[in-house]
Amino acid sequence: MSDNYAVIGKSVPKIDGREKATGAAKYTGDLKFPNMLFGKILGSPYAHAKILSIDTSEAEKLPGVKAVITHKDVPTLKYGISPARWDENIFCSDKVRFVGDKVAAVACIDEETCYKALKLIKVEYEVLPAVLDPLHAMDEGAPQIHDEYPLNINTEIHQNFGDVDKAFAEAYYVRTDYFVGQRTYQAPIEPHSAVSIWQDNKLTIYSSTQSPHYFQHYIAREFGLKMGDVRIIKTYVGGGFGGKLEPTGLEFAGAVLSKLTGRPVKTFYDRHEMFAHNRGRHREYMEMTTGVDKNGKILGVYAKFIMDGGAYTSLGIASAYYAGALLTLTYEFENYKWDLHRVYTNLPACGAQRGHGAPQPKYAFESHLDNIAKELGIDPLEIRLRNCRRPNTVTANEFIINSCELKACLEKAGEISGWRAKKGNLPKGRGIGIATGSFVSGAGYPIYRTDLPQSAAMIKVAEDGSAATLYTGATDIGQGSDTILCQMAAEGMGYRYENMKIIAADTETTPHDFGAYSSRQTLMAGTACKLAGEEIKKQILDMASTMMSLTPDDLECRLGIISSKSRPMAKSITFEEAATRFFALRGPLLGRGVYVVPRLGGTFKGAVVGTSPAYSYCAQITEVQIDEETGEIDVREIWDVHDCGMVINPMQLHGQVHGALYMGMGESIWEEVKFDTQGKILNPNLGGYMLPTALDMPIIHSELVESYESAGPWGAKEVGEGATNPTMGCFSNAIFDAMGIRVNSLPLTFEKVWRALKEKREGITKD
Amino acid sequence: MSDNYAVIGKSVPKIDGREKATGAAKYTGDLKFPNMLFGKILGSPYAHAKILSIDTSEAEKLPGVKAVITHKDVPTLKYGISPARWDENIFCSDKVRFVGDKVAAVACIDEETCYKALKLIKVEYEVLPAVLDPLHAMDEGAPQIHDEYPLNINTEIHQNFGDVDKAFAEAYYVRTDYFVGQRTYQAPIEPHSAVSIWQDNKLTIYSSTQSPHYFQHYIAREFGLKMGDVRIIKTYVGGGFGGKLEPTGLEFAGAVLSKLTGRPVKTFYDRHEMFAHNRGRHREYMEMTTGVDKNGKILGVYAKFIMDGGAYTSLGIASAYYAGALLTLTYEFENYKWDLHRVYTNLPACGAQRGHGAPQPKYAFESHLDNIAKELGIDPLEIRLRNCRRPNTVTANEFIINSCELKACLEKAGEISGWRAKKGNLPKGRGIGIATGSFVSGAGYPIYRTDLPQSAAMIKVAEDGSAATLYTGATDIGQGSDTILCQMAAEGMGYRYENMKIIAADTETTPHDFGAYSSRQTLMAGTACKLAGEEIKKQILDMASTMMSLTPDDLECRLGIISSKSRPMAKSITFEEAATRFFALRGPLLGRGVYVVPRLGGTFKGAVVGTSPAYSYCAQITEVQIDEETGEIDVREIWDVHDCGMVINPMQLHGQVHGALYMGMGESIWEEVKFDTQGKILNPNLGGYMLPTALDMPIIHSELVESYESAGPWGAKEVGEGATNPTMGCFSNAIFDAMGIRVNSLPLTFEKVWRALKEKREGITKD
Repeated sequence: MSDNYAVIGKSVPKIDGREKATGAAKYTGDLKFPNMLFGKILGSPYAHAKILSIDTSEAEKLPGVKAVITHKDVPTLKYGISPARWDENIFCSDKVRFVGDKVAAVACIDEETCYKALKLIKVEYEVLPAVLDPLHAMDEGAPQIHDEYPLNINTEIHQNFGDVDKAFAEAYYVRTDYFVGQRTYQAPIEPHSAVSIWQDNKLTIYSSTQSPHYFQHYIAREFGLKMGDVRIIKTYVGGGFGGKLEPTGLEFAGAVLSKLTGRPVKTFYDRHEMFAHNRGRHREYMEMTTGVDKNGKILGVYAKFIMDGGAYTSLGIASAYYAGALLTLTYEFENYKWDLHRVYTNLPACGAQRGHGAPQPKYAFESHLDNIAKELGIDPLEIRLRNCRRPNTVTANEFIINSCELKACLEKAGEISGWRAKKGNLPKGRGIGIATGSFVSGAGYPIYRTDLPQSAAMIKVAEDGSAATLYTGATDIGQGSDTILCQMAAEGMGYRYENMKIIAADTETTPHDFGAYSSRQTLMAGTACKLAGEEIKKQILDMASTMMSLTPDDLECRLGIISSKSRPMAKSITFEEAATRFFALRGPLLGRGVYVVPRLGGTFKGAVVGTSPAYSYCAQITEVQIDEETGEIDVREIWDVHDCGMVINPMQLHGQVHGALYMGMGESIWEEVKFDTQGKILNPNLGGYMLPTALDMPIIHSELVESYESAGPWGAKEVGEGATNPTMGCFSNAIFDAMGIRVNSLPLTFEKVWRALKEKREGITKD
Repeated sequence: MSDNYAVIGKSVPKIDGREKATGAAKYTGDLKFPNMLFGKILGSPYAHAKILSIDTSEAEKLPGVKAVITHKDVPTLKYGISPARWDENIFCSDKVRFVGDKVAAVACIDEETCYKALKLIKVEYEVLPAVLDPLHAMDEGAPQIHDEYPLNINTEIHQNFGDVDKAFAEAYYVRTDYFVGQRTYQAPIEPHSAVSIWQDNKLTIYSSTQSPHYFQHYIAREFGLKMGDVRIIKTYVGGGFGGKLEPTGLEFAGAVLSKLTGRPVKTFYDRHEMFAHNRGRHREYMEMTTGVDKNGKILGVYAKFIMDGGAYTSLGIASAYYAGALLTLTYEFENYKWDLHRVYTNLPACGAQRGHGAPQPKYAFESHLDNIAKELGIDPLEIRLRNCRRPNTVTANEFIINSCELKACLEKAGEISGWRAKKGNLPKGRGIGIATGSFVSGAGYPIYRTDLPQSAAMIKVAEDGSAATLYTGATDIGQGSDTILCQMAAEGMGYRYENMKIIAADTETTPHDFGAYSSRQTLMAGTACKLAGEEIKKQILDMASTMMSLTPDDLECRLGIISSKSRPMAKSITFEEAATRFFALRGPLLGRGVYVVPRLGGTFKGAVVGTSPAYSYCAQITEVQIDEETGEIDVREIWDVHDCGMVINPMQLHGQVHGALYMGMGESIWEEVKFDTQGKILNPNLGGYMLPTALDMPIIHSELVESYESAGPWGAKEVGEGATNPTMGCFSNAIFDAMGIRVNSLPLTFEKVWRALKEKREGITKD
């Protein structure tokens, strides 16, 4: 398919590759401004405590301290990225709700002074009983974390489609399994930092952000500024993965410190603070009940979730919705019911992490489905083929699916992994597992203001046509969106990628875009860039038609060469020639494009939330070797076959898949944020939080099944998060295959595997 | 008049005022890049010499030296800002033509190593006879500087309008005077520097430039790159005054050094190098002959010029044309003839300096006219009133004059200075002088490619209408163009200045503009910004009309409030409301504007050069006190009355007038670049080159006579250079009035005045 195109479908080099590889790229932490101060936030030492008094006088006296602020110095308007639940303040006034909760901040001439000053702030606390266990947060008599939310219920969702009870009654086999997903953390290599400059009632913030737009909106709201008086500039970003989508204390406190001191203020999180403030993946308790016929066809599913939200909402409402709602994407069944509680606890708040709410329920369901397959004696690949979604279908919860090549993904994954030859024939300790995934290509409706188009783009062509500048608010956080958006703009224009320039993600210089989350940019920003490019091409062909004495309809422009369609041997002219003439006669050659989300299915009781214009699909197979003595898991190979529609840049696409698998693998086996009994993180560093290293990476086979997604530009849809979704389930199933026993909680650590094997040997476990 | 407007006509604060006042503004010299090298150019020690050999081997061996380049390492394509005379090479290959001429360059890890390395480059020269005196450069047998230009004639202009001989024959009085204008230097406070980054066949240069566009064009041409592969970014500029309009050795050598080393290279001129490379004002010999009737009415003028061009052309062809052509602007006469030679000498090249070719001929003519007035017994103000130009007239050399309030300027200057009471009645040693000036509002035709529009602009409105970003290639070099262009854009939009943002003078991110020279930006870039603003307003009113159920014609938008013209008491809506709706329904709100110069008069023998769409006018009066013992000149007061059409920003306008008077005063009394007998500058520093200081400034009265210029945006025209034009003549006349004797060469130094007084006392001089 990609042969039809001149620019897209090619692995062009990343537009910022050299800057990054040579170290020339400036991240927020690299920025220096004249007279810049450094700011740090004082965190609570207790998980739950009343603030009796705060005495900043000693800190203020320390030489080099330029400002000390508490709740008395900042707006008290509550904020949060989810407009349905604003529950956060810049600084705590009445009480603190987790270890690390924000109490005060300082601005000083250097970092060292900041740390000294923080120690001099005297806060008197009255320690309150804390609730750290989400399973008991809803108990009568449990400590109440927010007065406004009784029984610590932050979010409650109950959805019911079809008739699950009837389905279960008619089923050949009904099974219930119970799983736990752990709390993880995004671990971007670049910790979050911000430089705030508040001058003349205008606020400029350089920030490591996934969405300049949301930052601008919420910061303006908090300080009562117009959006136009708040400028957010994204610098290079060293990874976000969901943790840099919402403005944090860095930006809020930094802004106030800059306003008070009249100087630029750089605020930053140390690695251990990142763990407290980065809003990672929820700990989640999941009960899955499924009824199937004797062929393994799914008749109905009932899912029950309790999510540990931590002390604040963050993006948790959306995570909660995705947890239940996206479970219908990969398999076709008519009857679906789910109940979910997201509860407050006295732990750091959780939010979005690559895959958002989807990977853990997917882990649970894919494990659960394997259990069913085993019980019925059906091959795991086969049971998935029997149930897998077909294109142009509608889910139980009314999501409209256009393109869907899940069946082809499964078949190809089975083929390239040698599934049928291996399954049941592997040596002792070796196992192979399979799982499927699907993910949105952008949330259908943004977090606020549904009348705002999702993406806009503009293009300016240089006066001699030898370059074109794309202006987009879309946000490259390392995933490569700047590159593929330039490809799409150039394809739309009939131009060359090599001559594209890009200005991105600065609210002052680029048009609106919601930024990098929910895998939205390829489809949404991509469409805006395509349309802007096509508007340029239309004008160029119109000009060329007068120069060539041909009708515009007879002309095509490809890689900057304008030629006749009907007479391909006739003399062509260049884009440059037409652009030069255009500028001389008509002035600047500009194109604009805008992406407005179409009306989508998936309403529920009048509320429209979280569905998407398009869904990607993938099948994954993992082969592991278990050391039965030690429980050690040797990940040998992973096969991932992805349907992401038209591929804009194969190299980057495979890079996204590799990255997603890496993260999914880490969460499957090693990663977990752990707390002591007082709610303090035990491993807030990259020594104790066990990210995989390059040496832990298995052989990865990333393959594609192309499809054409009618809602996407040239048929493209998501790839950034999707491949994370099946991974944990896939590992669970491979380990299950290797050991014959199921570990029901993530991560599937060597220790858990060793214990499970030991219990099996000792006859404690069944299965 | 300015009461009709909401944004223009107001002294809004400068948009970059705070950045500059606080030191936060980054100039090119402030920039640092990872791995950046420093580059310096080796200059010739001789005014004229053959290069026999260059040995760079010792320099290359010095630790820290990363590259040493000579003519062998660079393109040999000749360049120059005037396409009619490309006579310059990046490095000399055959011979050097002035002390400082470029021979080689080094790139090193620090500045100190650069200086050491330059000393290690061994160049063998054969010294040639040099010609330093322009009066003898055209002599048969004079040393030949460029083989292609016999008799060292760089430019020769002969123009003849009407019949001067007949006019002289019919005149009551014909007089010839002879004057000399000195070589001066622009002396911007910021020396020129550049950072060049050549990577992947693309070249980015940060430069202290007056015209990113010309830099881009000529640098691309020199290196055979597409313009789109050359990006020029103007940083903050600390003054240009004509000296930063053309790319110099800094950019050319820096680019090659960056290409060879693969690293960013910062090249910079020390102050003494600025004197050699900055292309200041020409030394000029001027003979003026004028015939008048007995009432002092000018019947015809014959002017003869020899200009010392130095070793290269630079902008000297335009300076030469302006020298003769602009002499017709202020006074009406039918018969005009002029002959000019611009000659090569073995001195640094001369080019444009504030006022370009106009101030020295104006000095000569205004002195000359005073001599005539004295001879005829006519008051100097009176003779100017009798001859002064009226609006809607055509000059002898066919320039079309629209607005012209010179008469009102003269009357007002006479009135506010108390001319009639003072003239002839001042105490001994006190004198008062008068002169007039006029200047172009942009050169009608750019230096190259006459089919290219002069200016383009675009505006993007934020999605909620609370800010608007103006994109312009126009170049703020301290004169405040960013500020007034935002005012004009906001006025066009019906919006507020306070919410304007600007992106300017970066060839990649902003649309084309020719930059800051010939006082073109207010009229040309201003028109483009006005049109872009009006395109926004049209779209906003269209949207508002549907929101308000009124016709667009009935709506007006002023300072962001949209209201009905016919029913002013009806409910209004805000620009923000309409913009928000616009974005939701139609996407990004963009406006574009382009300024194309209209067809102008002023052709001469088929060639159309240098005329302008509009001309400013001014009258100036200066009062001085001469110490007859010492010759010391005490400048007491200056009155300047300017007709610059509609005033966009009065505070900035008066700032421009003050600055122009400051520079004109310096050139009148103190400033001169002096050479020894070998062609070496004697005073290449701010100690020896006598710029006036703040303490030397007199009381300045800057007043306005408003007019409406039909060719300008809202009637605006030039102010940046015009006030420099009368100043030297005005000083000459004031000193003449005070002493009764005429000093016929600039600068009118204390020493020259003292000598003139001494000669007068000793009876040597007449007058």
